Amino acid sequence: MLILITNDDGIQAKGIQTIARVAAKYGQVVVVAPNGPRSAQSSALTIEVPVSVKPVPSDNENITQYAVSGTPADCVKLAISQLLDEKPNLVISGINHGSNASINVIYSGTIGAAIEGALHGIPSIGFSLCDHDADADFEPSLPYFEQIIAKTINSEMPKDICLNVNAPKGEVKGIRACRQAEGRWANDFGKTPAPRANDYYWLIGDFMFLNDNDMNADQCAIENGYITVVPLQFDMTAYKAIEYCKQYEA
Amino acid sequence: MLILITNDDGIQAKGIQTIARVAAKYGQVVVVAPNGPRSAQSSALTIEVPVSVKPVPSDNENITQYAVSGTPADCVKLAISQLLDEKPNLVISGINHGSNASINVIYSGTIGAAIEGALHGIPSIGFSLCDHDADADFEPSLPYFEQIIAKTINSEMPKDICLNVNAPKGEVKGIRACRQAEGRWANDFGKTPAPRANDYYWLIGDFMFLNDNDMNADQCAIENGYITVVPLQFDMTAYKAIEYCKQYEA
Repeated sequence: MLILITNDDGIQAKGIQTIARVAAKYGQVVVVAPNGPRSAQSSALTIEVPVSVKPVPSDNENITQYAVSGTPADCVKLAISQLLDEKPNLVISGINHGSNASINVIYSGTIGAAIEGALHGIPSIGFSLCDHDADADFEPSLPYFEQIIAKTINSEMPKDICLNVNAPKGEVKGIRACRQAEGRWANDFGKTPAPRANDYYWLIGDFMFLNDNDMNADQCAIENGYITVVPLQFDMTAYKAIEYCKQYEA
Repeated sequence: MLILITNDDGIQAKGIQTIARVAAKYGQVVVVAPNGPRSAQSSALTIEVPVSVKPVPSDNENITQYAVSGTPADCVKLAISQLLDEKPNLVISGINHGSNASINVIYSGTIGAAIEGALHGIPSIGFSLCDHDADADFEPSLPYFEQIIAKTINSEMPKDICLNVNAPKGEVKGIRACRQAEGRWANDFGKTPAPRANDYYWLIGDFMFLNDNDMNADQCAIENGYITVVPLQFDMTAYKAIEYCKQYEA
């Protein structure tokens, strides 16, 4: 069992180091992760410059590590095409420090990497804890995450999907299979004083949870204390809108 | 009619300047675009540094322009939250120099921006020409793109979708409503000699079109000379796999 692990918080983050130790109970682990923070990198790829790879020492004989100057999706592509001798049996992305529930899947580098694993035909899971703290406490959710890893190894994941797993901060009531909750970000950028020319803006944003108060929607289940498992796909076609698009035919 | 235009090739690109002039026939155009190339940026956002905005002169009185140091999705968020006095009626992203058909939607900054427009409840279209040349010839597809803009203004786009429009290089036979074709990238990274320490790799990749030889699949229709219109959604839930995920419940 060969397990590839990446993330978007960088190889030093507590989340990736924590899940690597859990995964190492189930097989040989290779960590190929960004050399620093790459949050909100979505499925971005590095195409304007080459990407560097640097081995990183490990104190666990079942774990090999590489730090990469690229994005999370780069890490998966690079591992599969260059660094690994064989195709991994499982791709794990995370544990992310912060939520990737609801619309955050669109922006998340953690999820970008999990999608990339699925595109290569490998069962892939993105794990996130709804706590941005660099020293976040993963202990309450860790036994559940381990269950999810074990069940994934012992089952056949459907083709062309990956799993988006999010845990609430603190106590966990259980695990629920969910859909992506409806939500949006608003008031995205704020203006900031700058010492010289040009105007400068910081991304801030308010998350708006669109009254999707259904325990089958991930955001709602998380707020009620559950870990959520959402299957994601990369066919983005809105099939129900193809009829609308027929008006454009010419 | 207020039309927001962005892209991922940068504000100087021929593609964005071409579509801005067409759109200016239909309303007031504000171009808010990256200050340089941002291809393959997906829905990435800039969160580690602030984003700068610089006005750019325009020789068309219906076009105002700003160059932004961020990603295409940043540009849409910044325009709506800070630069525009009112919410635009239409978001156009492109014209991209290069294909955004099939699985390229996942990586494309052009599409990331169009999705961002849709997330803000605005009819949004990503336009691409399957020609990477900086001096690509947009003339054969331009009358069709203009038709698509006019029909979008005169119809009501369904909620929570955007359009992914791709044109073949050269002669155009017509326009077809399609789904996202199945395809993948393989052999992603190649190793490159480097003068000093570390190993360096460039993203290369071979596009594999997965025998999706159906004229309802965008890649196939484009290869047969058609412009394709694919509706995209941002609910990424793989509903058919929720049943599989029930095994994880605990």
